[in-house]
Amino acid sequence: MTQYFDLDAPIQFEGPESDNPLAFRHYNANEVVLGKTMKEHLRFGACYWHNFCWNGFDVFGEGTFDRAWHKGGSPMELAKLKADAAFEFFSKLTIPFYSFHDIDAIPEGNSIQEYVNNFAEMEEVLARKQEETGTKLLWGTANVFSNKRFMSGAATNPDPEVFAYAATQICSAMSATHRLGGQNYVLWGGREGYETLLNTDLRQEREQYARMLQLAVEHKHKIGFKGTLLIEPKPQEPTKHQYDYDTATVYGFLKQYGLENEFKVNIEANHATLSGHSFQHEVATAVSLGMFGSIDANRGDPQLGWDTDQFPNSVEEMALVIYEILKGGGFTTGGFLFDTKLRRQSIDPMDLFHGHIGGMDTLAAALKKAAVLLEQETLSKLVAQRYAGWDQELGRQILSGQHSLESLKQYALQHKLDPKPISGAQEMLENRVNRILF
Amino acid sequence: MTQYFDLDAPIQFEGPESDNPLAFRHYNANEVVLGKTMKEHLRFGACYWHNFCWNGFDVFGEGTFDRAWHKGGSPMELAKLKADAAFEFFSKLTIPFYSFHDIDAIPEGNSIQEYVNNFAEMEEVLARKQEETGTKLLWGTANVFSNKRFMSGAATNPDPEVFAYAATQICSAMSATHRLGGQNYVLWGGREGYETLLNTDLRQEREQYARMLQLAVEHKHKIGFKGTLLIEPKPQEPTKHQYDYDTATVYGFLKQYGLENEFKVNIEANHATLSGHSFQHEVATAVSLGMFGSIDANRGDPQLGWDTDQFPNSVEEMALVIYEILKGGGFTTGGFLFDTKLRRQSIDPMDLFHGHIGGMDTLAAALKKAAVLLEQETLSKLVAQRYAGWDQELGRQILSGQHSLESLKQYALQHKLDPKPISGAQEMLENRVNRILF
Amino acid sequence: MTQYFDLDAPIQFEGPESDNPLAFRHYNANEVVLGKTMKEHLRFGACYWHNFCWNGFDVFGEGTFDRAWHKGGSPMELAKLKADAAFEFFSKLTIPFYSFHDIDAIPEGNSIQEYVNNFAEMEEVLARKQEETGTKLLWGTANVFSNKRFMSGAATNPDPEVFAYAATQICSAMSATHRLGGQNYVLWGGREGYETLLNTDLRQEREQYARMLQLAVEHKHKIGFKGTLLIEPKPQEPTKHQYDYDTATVYGFLKQYGLENEFKVNIEANHATLSGHSFQHEVATAVSLGMFGSIDANRGDPQLGWDTDQFPNSVEEMALVIYEILKGGGFTTGGFLFDTKLRRQSIDPMDLFHGHIGGMDTLAAALKKAAVLLEQETLSKLVAQRYAGWDQELGRQILSGQHSLESLKQYALQHKLDPKPISGAQEMLENRVNRILF
Amino acid sequence: MTQYFDLDAPIQFEGPESDNPLAFRHYNANEVVLGKTMKEHLRFGACYWHNFCWNGFDVFGEGTFDRAWHKGGSPMELAKLKADAAFEFFSKLTIPFYSFHDIDAIPEGNSIQEYVNNFAEMEEVLARKQEETGTKLLWGTANVFSNKRFMSGAATNPDPEVFAYAATQICSAMSATHRLGGQNYVLWGGREGYETLLNTDLRQEREQYARMLQLAVEHKHKIGFKGTLLIEPKPQEPTKHQYDYDTATVYGFLKQYGLENEFKVNIEANHATLSGHSFQHEVATAVSLGMFGSIDANRGDPQLGWDTDQFPNSVEEMALVIYEILKGGGFTTGGFLFDTKLRRQSIDPMDLFHGHIGGMDTLAAALKKAAVLLEQETLSKLVAQRYAGWDQELGRQILSGQHSLESLKQYALQHKLDPKPISGAQEMLENRVNRILF
Repeated sequence: MTQYFDLDAPIQFEGPESDNPLAFRHYNANEVVLGKTMKEHLRFGACYWHNFCWNGFDVFGEGTFDRAWHKGGSPMELAKLKADAAFEFFSKLTIPFYSFHDIDAIPEGNSIQEYVNNFAEMEEVLARKQEETGTKLLWGTANVFSNKRFMSGAATNPDPEVFAYAATQICSAMSATHRLGGQNYVLWGGREGYETLLNTDLRQEREQYARMLQLAVEHKHKIGFKGTLLIEPKPQEPTKHQYDYDTATVYGFLKQYGLENEFKVNIEANHATLSGHSFQHEVATAVSLGMFGSIDANRGDPQLGWDTDQFPNSVEEMALVIYEILKGGGFTTGGFLFDTKLRRQSIDPMDLFHGHIGGMDTLAAALKKAAVLLEQETLSKLVAQRYAGWDQELGRQILSGQHSLESLKQYALQHKLDPKPISGAQEMLENRVNRILF
Repeated sequence: MTQYFDLDAPIQFEGPESDNPLAFRHYNANEVVLGKTMKEHLRFGACYWHNFCWNGFDVFGEGTFDRAWHKGGSPMELAKLKADAAFEFFSKLTIPFYSFHDIDAIPEGNSIQEYVNNFAEMEEVLARKQEETGTKLLWGTANVFSNKRFMSGAATNPDPEVFAYAATQICSAMSATHRLGGQNYVLWGGREGYETLLNTDLRQEREQYARMLQLAVEHKHKIGFKGTLLIEPKPQEPTKHQYDYDTATVYGFLKQYGLENEFKVNIEANHATLSGHSFQHEVATAVSLGMFGSIDANRGDPQLGWDTDQFPNSVEEMALVIYEILKGGGFTTGGFLFDTKLRRQSIDPMDLFHGHIGGMDTLAAALKKAAVLLEQETLSKLVAQRYAGWDQELGRQILSGQHSLESLKQYALQHKLDPKPISGAQEMLENRVNRILF
Repeated sequence: MTQYFDLDAPIQFEGPESDNPLAFRHYNANEVVLGKTMKEHLRFGACYWHNFCWNGFDVFGEGTFDRAWHKGGSPMELAKLKADAAFEFFSKLTIPFYSFHDIDAIPEGNSIQEYVNNFAEMEEVLARKQEETGTKLLWGTANVFSNKRFMSGAATNPDPEVFAYAATQICSAMSATHRLGGQNYVLWGGREGYETLLNTDLRQEREQYARMLQLAVEHKHKIGFKGTLLIEPKPQEPTKHQYDYDTATVYGFLKQYGLENEFKVNIEANHATLSGHSFQHEVATAVSLGMFGSIDANRGDPQLGWDTDQFPNSVEEMALVIYEILKGGGFTTGGFLFDTKLRRQSIDPMDLFHGHIGGMDTLAAALKKAAVLLEQETLSKLVAQRYAGWDQELGRQILSGQHSLESLKQYALQHKLDPKPISGAQEMLENRVNRILF
Repeated sequence: MTQYFDLDAPIQFEGPESDNPLAFRHYNANEVVLGKTMKEHLRFGACYWHNFCWNGFDVFGEGTFDRAWHKGGSPMELAKLKADAAFEFFSKLTIPFYSFHDIDAIPEGNSIQEYVNNFAEMEEVLARKQEETGTKLLWGTANVFSNKRFMSGAATNPDPEVFAYAATQICSAMSATHRLGGQNYVLWGGREGYETLLNTDLRQEREQYARMLQLAVEHKHKIGFKGTLLIEPKPQEPTKHQYDYDTATVYGFLKQYGLENEFKVNIEANHATLSGHSFQHEVATAVSLGMFGSIDANRGDPQLGWDTDQFPNSVEEMALVIYEILKGGGFTTGGFLFDTKLRRQSIDPMDLFHGHIGGMDTLAAALKKAAVLLEQETLSKLVAQRYAGWDQELGRQILSGQHSLESLKQYALQHKLDPKPISGAQEMLENRVNRILF
């Protein structure tokens, strides 16, 4: 079998002082932090699409990558070369999980029948690869946005036949995810939204989208899939507006259709920032709503208005994100999936290692910092103290429904209330965080 | 009584060809459009705060306006001068409605008791002014964000005494709104949100906020107020993040606490754009969710990242917004309230007329265009046709729950589905709209 | 010859009341406005790239367009089919100009020699097409950003051989533009900029870029090209940062290298808004700096952070833009080139007509409105009046250098200066503009 | 004399492990880094305006701070209390520099004569305070944007009397800066720009602005001021558009009027990000243009569209900024001036210490990291290597003018150029930076 990556041995942990760019400096898989290994905490995964399907093209230019596994064979043969490359990479990176869209790994074929046949054949290849390498499936999903038939949406398409086509892919991908031991199944509504309200019926499309989510839930239970169903919010791109804009919007949508207990969210850093929120906000919101599922780890560019999917490299940002996750109890079925792409100029196959090693080390360093934040109760004690009044008489009465507006007015007048503000101490808290970071 | 505005007679409609800057060219109150007068459709209101309280200051500079009603008297005397100026303006503008925050019209006083006393006195003044001029109250609200006691929120404040203080104001303002014949009561959570997650307990604050909304609902029913309770979404400013970010977020929040039938939304154009949506999107979303209540008519600046509250002046934009409103059945208790401020350099009191006349004419012209769009079914026929498949067999079966993912897969394979995309025709639809506009 | 567009006769002007979607309602080529025909004022052009090269792909999905001229032939044969389609379209649209990048029309080939050979052959084809149809070349340019060799820039590439390759293309394209009677030559530095400062030497790259501009100037003079050299500003995309960020930045760059008299700017609406300016601002700035050259007519989406290149459809916006252009004396060699793309869902070839007809009508309607603004001196009189003080003694003395800070201080103290602000009257001016628009 | 800050001794350096929130952990003034002390490298300054003038108001609410030095006296008495508080703070913080706008420290008075008189009196107070405490003046400036007379600009005002008034202030402030030993004089054109193009003459206003800059240069030379004149770019806020948008725009403006050797830029982090650039970009651009002067150290909020002026707290960001400064030779007359404001909820006077200690420690930690980056040539070696081709024959010939486009074309064809792209290695470089950070 061809070797696609010029690396004799898997990437090793060598410690913070190592100068070897192909070693981990912080990610030490079996190091125990707050009672669990780093591997258990972080549950890293690599993606199929950006790493093994994308050739480096962008809207203004052709592919730059010239990958060996993209050349010389039928679609099915190339799919197998791609699987070879992918699992060689996963192994050498020592990353425990991966994720894929159906047609990342499976040639779409020229008909729906071919799609189904190809899927069956490639599912076996993937199963074997998983077994050989020990790499596990974090989540599967169906790509119902790239083919031109989905240009006007999949579930929300004006044509019910497109809905049926998408249902076929989702059915196939969910069942395969189940059989491959996948721990989650993701739905991202990339074209579920609109380009212009002039040709769009919002109410109709929401009904259609909800119906598809309902069907996914029913299928999950029918086949006995125990993993988590995840929705991945994104505000726009490729559409002008997606229905799953951000976590709070997804929550409202699910509540409208009584689906809020069946789905959690897969939060992507770059989607969060495109929606006008910080990544930390999206995670904290999901945790507070009981909807936190998994993470698409990456970063955007604050000066650019599209999804750049860069590798996370800010320990400062990630420490606070992991702090929120740890406060919420940590991952269950989810993990940190690197939905990251190399810069188009990073054309060397070894750049795939640099990108992932950097991302894994960033998150590992951040985990260690977050653990200290949690253990030292640096923030939590002060926060608890700030709201302490709500555990005293007036606060308890208000929250337990013993007051009306009028009784509060009477209370206020009787007690001549004139509450004195107390400093929010933001700068001091920021310094406390920095004390742990540096 | 002093005359504050140098204008002998109220503003008149003079028709599109008029060159008189102090006349309406499109707003003809009693002109009938689609079976209702313009006045009934548009339900215009002017605001108290920007027009009569603000002195033209901004973060970088002092007030520029030098208003006669801001000078020479005790707080209570000035409040009465302000009411004189306001109702003189409403009358001369011939605008049917107005809106106010409690402390726009009522001196806050030095204690909660003074606040209550001042309120009682000024309520009578306002009642008399309403009667004298025929101006009606579109909505009332309480300002629970300007006083320093609310710096960390009102309902979501860490101190329950602040909650009680806010409850006092809301209780007073809602009861007064009821007695003054107000048609709606608005809640805007200007400081209900956070500056930093480091000192914030999201779950706790959401509980507090929901509790306040619940109390408002109970009070409404207790006092027999028949108007609509409205929440006004805004994403940020003054806080970094508000809980009522946009319409979809408000919907989710209300659903979480079972309040979705008790509130509608008051959508502001400039808040919409700050939240990453078009104004039309926010209105269409509210209509599709059954939550459309009222409008804060203004515009933002696409190059600026804060709330500029400029007067609406785009017939192109407003025609599509009014089209959405008309499709949804039009206003019931709501209306177009000009939550607009003069530019800081527009220091002449007559500029208040120029701003409002421009806004009213823009919306009146837009109403006429929107009516044509609706009557000619310019868009609606094509939209209906686009989704027609959902009224046929496959579509009906899917939506009515007769299909599972697996049965759809079988259907797709049997029928060898290969749906062909049809043009979304966005450019043609845009041209059709422009044909009506120009 | 195949007919690619199902249209028997060219598009006709039918007047504002026409309901024919394939007719002009405002663009009446020979109608005289302010002493020139609409055709002479507007100088419309269509582009080769979005209309005839792009297949409807985006970053998230494959091509949707399925164009007849993209199928069944060698690159050279397809290039000829494409030229057939393009010039059939230009003729039927009755658009006087077109523009192209070298490799839009000319197969790039597998070597630099093939590129040169192909260019020679296709140049003749284009010359013949121009002659047959009467369509003229507004501007030519070289695409030195799509091929992977340009991934790190063309002129600013770290490898001087890439510079030489780009120079070859620019040399060929400029000479061909000259021979084809092109009226301008455009340089757009799509990849002249950086992705990360970590691997970038700003000073070095600026030197390289300036050198290429200098070479272009020398070549122009050597071959006797009388057209205008244009730089097209854009802030980012595909790079993170381009050196030609906006008009003011381009001006500074040219001044640094003494090139400010050799170039003008080609301003694109959507690039303007991505750079944080209004389109009107960029045009007014270019006019005020004596750098106004040509326009890439399109529009962006205020909610999206990338270049959407939609067809212009706002008469409101375009009336003010054309007003600035008319005030500056109108186009000389430039024109309104539609650098516009169909939405990816607008897959019908006839949508190309809908898009362009809409754009042309929007600009024609805007021209008529702008002419009225100019003729009635609606704005100009008030602006002149506003600055009138600068034509009086103190103003003249200051500007002519007769005062120092100290003499002004003496003057201010002696005259006890206390200047009184006068209203900026923004709302009234906006109303005056709207009076002409509606 | 009243003690405003409850602190017995000045802030001390206690080292990274210190848990004392009122100690420095990284800023050790006399520690030597790259041959200079930290104090010499960083040249920290505190500002007068946010710290001692602002009372915590924002557009939506009143002041929250309740400072002792804002109460109980005539304007002149309060100005002296404010000076007491300011210099007590500077001393206890051990910050070597401060900066002020004229009217931060000097009561504006009710006439221009009073302004001049007050200035003379307060200049002595400041001189004495400087002497007593050893605090030096980093820069002075004149506030010609807050008073309502400047609402339409100072130098660019339509009224030349306003120009003269501003000239008086600039003359006074520049002379006072000179006498107080100030090391720089700053011009920020807060209202030099426009709100709407409808009432603006861009060309006229640019002439006026240039005239004022010219007058400032002449005055500087006349009085023998040896400090640096600095322009502070900002894109907008309070205006819609400022003429000094960003560094590149300022450069072009200065070149147009031949002033490029007389001014440098004072770059503010938050202004950089509002203009669509990273802070690092603005610094690197200024260095590459030879225009780097000084820094207004703060940070914005990536989710908010206005100037939040928060304290810098990202070592990650600041390490790269300081790296650019060190590469450019470091500060000469400039320094890191904290143009920072407390959050409105941070109402405790001690929060002023927390904010500044955090900022100083962040920059000190960043300096240590940047020094390592520079010493290890982590980035510079690879960058030099990347552009090495430009020191070889073809590169040298191109840059030295020995090639034309045609000769390069001949060269390319003869050598059958087919340059092969090399990885830009962004991810690896990011990892190298992180290796030094963590």
